[in-house]
Amino acid sequence: MIEEDLAAGAEIALEEGHARHVGTVLRLDVGDVVRVFNARDGEWRARVSGKTKRGMNVRVEEQLCEARAAPDLELLFAPVKRQATDLIVEKATELGVRRLRPVITQRTIAETVRLDRLQAIAREAAEQTERFDAPEICEAVSLVRALDGWDVARPLIYADEAGDDASATWGGERGRARPILDQLNAPHPPTSPQGGGGVSVLIGPEGGFTPEERRMLRSFPYVIPVSLGPRILRAETAVIAALSVIQAAWGDWRKG
Amino acid sequence: MIEEDLAAGAEIALEEGHARHVGTVLRLDVGDVVRVFNARDGEWRARVSGKTKRGMNVRVEEQLCEARAAPDLELLFAPVKRQATDLIVEKATELGVRRLRPVITQRTIAETVRLDRLQAIAREAAEQTERFDAPEICEAVSLVRALDGWDVARPLIYADEAGDDASATWGGERGRARPILDQLNAPHPPTSPQGGGGVSVLIGPEGGFTPEERRMLRSFPYVIPVSLGPRILRAETAVIAALSVIQAAWGDWRKG
Repeated sequence: MIEEDLAAGAEIALEEGHARHVGTVLRLDVGDVVRVFNARDGEWRARVSGKTKRGMNVRVEEQLCEARAAPDLELLFAPVKRQATDLIVEKATELGVRRLRPVITQRTIAETVRLDRLQAIAREAAEQTERFDAPEICEAVSLVRALDGWDVARPLIYADEAGDDASATWGGERGRARPILDQLNAPHPPTSPQGGGGVSVLIGPEGGFTPEERRMLRSFPYVIPVSLGPRILRAETAVIAALSVIQAAWGDWRKG
Repeated sequence: MIEEDLAAGAEIALEEGHARHVGTVLRLDVGDVVRVFNARDGEWRARVSGKTKRGMNVRVEEQLCEARAAPDLELLFAPVKRQATDLIVEKATELGVRRLRPVITQRTIAETVRLDRLQAIAREAAEQTERFDAPEICEAVSLVRALDGWDVARPLIYADEAGDDASATWGGERGRARPILDQLNAPHPPTSPQGGGGVSVLIGPEGGFTPEERRMLRSFPYVIPVSLGPRILRAETAVIAALSVIQAAWGDWRKG
């Protein structure tokens, strides 16, 4: 991913990490072809035009692919242990999430969220998966604050892990959420997700949401509770599973 | 997970790892309630009946839940790097796979597959996810051998990563596979997957399948090629994504 504008004839000095990758990992030399891209200009063919001990220049030649934005898919997730949080950021990036918002829920064991660290992981995953843009990663806020002023036309799909309180009754119906594909295939006024608008996904911490949080979530008209099957999933598994099914049913996996 | 038969009144000595978990992690003492389960007898309430420095006995009281088998969902996967292979085994277990078969494809960088190590990971993941049975893990065989004598009524869904050869033509149709949900919703004679029979999933190595392998796979009537969207997924991400969508559309996630 290149910060500079990409256009035919442009001469660009690769930043140190890219230069090392191209020179040492890909072992390219002057005259070799390399692909470069960014979110604005898409993907271009370039050729190594200069090489020093620590740096490398490329000359941009021809556009290979128009810029394409990731779908308007947003992930709200409760930070978990460091390794699992890293995995969430990496996999959400691969699965095409545009924005990641860490949210602090009542059962979140709030380890500090290091934004710069997560941004580096997202950037690396974006390059590996050949996305043209890395997802934005926001500052952590409380769940209540994240929902404040929510656009009611934007569905918020949340994985409603059936915990010990699953047999309780919320608003007259059994607590257990309906299967995810049933929910995605059903109409959901006032939201219009099948129309291709933006969608948000919320995955809680290992211990799930508290009864109070579940009651609050279910009181909002834009919230769609879904079940991810009969087994207990780790938070990072629930993230990948929910994003995959949503991309398959509503997102850019429909195009094949 | 307990090897012994579970029945009301049975007195069982926990094996060392379980005893340590119950005594040190859960901090349970004599008289406290603990849940025990296995694949034959389901889940039972038990009570700690004796505790020594290294061991622990429980007395089984009452059945909480009938035994339920994982769905007949099988994963064929090309072993990748150790950490990624470990993740594949852990996540496939959480997602309800009954059998894991490492297969060696032409582009598999065959690191040795340590069955005992993978079995330990599967067993731990099964306990954590509250499955009653750990998946079976088979010896690694070549892809060709794995497909030899295949039951044509059993669909084999394979993630057909569009590589550089995606624009090539196989058997008269464009190489690119159709979106996964389109494929799962379409009829597939001679297989009858929607009827709830067994299903297998095949995920290749990082470099994908060779043109020769793709041609072979697509020549079998039971093979269903699917696309997992426009981005390049790592092997472990493709495993989790494919299993999630299949469980949501055909598997035990339909029950909510």
